Amino acid sequence: MFKARVMIKRRKTILDPQGKAVEIGAKHLGLNNIKNTRIDKLIEFDIDTNNRKAAEDEVNDYCKKLLANPIMEDYEFTLVEVS
Amino acid sequence: MFKARVMIKRRKTILDPQGKAVEIGAKHLGLNNIKNTRIDKLIEFDIDTNNRKAAEDEVNDYCKKLLANPIMEDYEFTLVEVS
Repeated sequence: MFKARVMIKRRKTILDPQGKAVEIGAKHLGLNNIKNTRIDKLIEFDIDTNNRKAAEDEVNDYCKKLLANPIMEDYEFTLVEVS
Repeated sequence: MFKARVMIKRRKTILDPQGKAVEIGAKHLGLNNIKNTRIDKLIEFDIDTNNRKAAEDEVNDYCKKLLANPIMEDYEFTLVEVS
């Protein structure tokens, strides 16, 4: 079995309004050193196979067809084999 | 300056309906090996200080007071110094 961790991030050039909003909150709390907050998605799941290539293909399919928006987001992932 | 990456995860015992929903979608696409999908938050930001201790304190404050829900979520973070 593999454990997959996928990070899906909006492209740098695209505004992240949620990040901007919490950063305004941070300023009000006196956290003045915090800049460029971006809020993205962290997705974790198990893949029930022992073949790394098959697991990678399944992660790519899952990301491209469901998890990530190809217009505005990029994804990267790590796969860790567990017994 | 430090770059912070915070991962905020719902506790394992708490249902993640969004993860369940995309997993049903995965089954419909024929991705049958995918199990236990959890969708959480990945938050990245810069901290404009050269003092690691001050940066850590600021990340903890930011998480506890704004980013994470202490009732249902746990957070972990990494800090990388950049010039």
